[in-house]
Amino acid sequence: MPSSVEARLAELGLTLVEPSAPAANYVPYVVSGSLVFVSGQISQDANGPIRGKLGADMDAEAGAAAARTCGLALIAQARAAAGGDLDRIKRVVKLLGLVNSTPDFTDQPKVVNGCSDLLVAAFGDRGRHARSAVGAPSLPLGAAVEIEGIFELG
Amino acid sequence: MPSSVEARLAELGLTLVEPSAPAANYVPYVVSGSLVFVSGQISQDANGPIRGKLGADMDAEAGAAAARTCGLALIAQARAAAGGDLDRIKRVVKLLGLVNSTPDFTDQPKVVNGCSDLLVAAFGDRGRHARSAVGAPSLPLGAAVEIEGIFELG
Amino acid sequence: MPSSVEARLAELGLTLVEPSAPAANYVPYVVSGSLVFVSGQISQDANGPIRGKLGADMDAEAGAAAARTCGLALIAQARAAAGGDLDRIKRVVKLLGLVNSTPDFTDQPKVVNGCSDLLVAAFGDRGRHARSAVGAPSLPLGAAVEIEGIFELG
Repeated sequence: MPSSVEARLAELGLTLVEPSAPAANYVPYVVSGSLVFVSGQISQDANGPIRGKLGADMDAEAGAAAARTCGLALIAQARAAAGGDLDRIKRVVKLLGLVNSTPDFTDQPKVVNGCSDLLVAAFGDRGRHARSAVGAPSLPLGAAVEIEGIFELG
Repeated sequence: MPSSVEARLAELGLTLVEPSAPAANYVPYVVSGSLVFVSGQISQDANGPIRGKLGADMDAEAGAAAARTCGLALIAQARAAAGGDLDRIKRVVKLLGLVNSTPDFTDQPKVVNGCSDLLVAAFGDRGRHARSAVGAPSLPLGAAVEIEGIFELG
Repeated sequence: MPSSVEARLAELGLTLVEPSAPAANYVPYVVSGSLVFVSGQISQDANGPIRGKLGADMDAEAGAAAARTCGLALIAQARAAAGGDLDRIKRVVKLLGLVNSTPDFTDQPKVVNGCSDLLVAAFGDRGRHARSAVGAPSLPLGAAVEIEGIFELG
């Protein structure tokens, strides 16, 4: 039976994919006490990385759509950390959102909202989180956005 | 009765303002166990954001003054998280300080010291924290500095 | 008697130096509950900071070597936090790796692998960690890499 979180995602037309494991000496998440630390998730869809630089070749709306895919990946990792049951996630604690930006792009919050809004749509009030949204001059694979997250297990 | 932390701030001529809530799907802080995760606070004063780019139109001293306003905002959020009583803050745990920088500005630590020094002035030894100070190509609203923090509740 | 971690480092020809204390109002690490938050460690060796900008004057291989020195410094700080006994470190929890990058450098993961690989060489499976690897336009002292870490005490 899907969790209530996945039911809400389904209403949005979204399904979680099985997260792939990193091909290196790090892991997608680590559980320490009740906290789940999830590795930075770059913007990507079925076609691969969503590339772009805000202020140059991508606008804030497209950036928010890219950030939303980071959110979906974070939820997929949180589900794995919770043994498959997202209803065991008590709270989304914190996000650090890095937006691939030119030196004069200043709308990082609008971009990261794409992820924040998805988390609240999926988790309701327990999806509300602390966060920082900042610029980065470049990100892995040229991704538009990378977001890491901390979740709390219930 | 003001906390001893606020008494020290008053000696410095500083008062905490009531922090405003973000107008988005995130919150100023989340408490998880004994940890308080405070959202990134941009440099600002009563006139709005303190904008600037270190290495271009702002020097390290002005950057440190901007970082100090981030520190004041972090303390205000910590006070709210502690139910209004800053003496319940056992420790400032960690800061991540992002400094709006040109590619050749390398004095990020001097800038973030403006925040670190304020925290130690306010909290004494329990204000000493782990931290990272790094450059960012751009920050929300063109702010000169953004700093997020983790505090521990006693 | 050296810890098993230090024995593994010795096999790699590496020894930990006594970490120096920051000359400012922050500290190298803070222990909160079972978590150790270690301040950002810049790339450096016996000759001082390892400077460079990836995409300009340093390639990914040299960047990975620089990141490895960040890893060695993180382990030295973790040892101090564990009262000198690295076998008390239960787990490396998380890294945030910032790579001094031009706007078109996108191999931050290869660079930060220099640190991740060392941690797994030193700690074995408990060295596997969550992480983010991102670009920064500039770092303190012109360092090529800065990495902060969270460890768990056993």
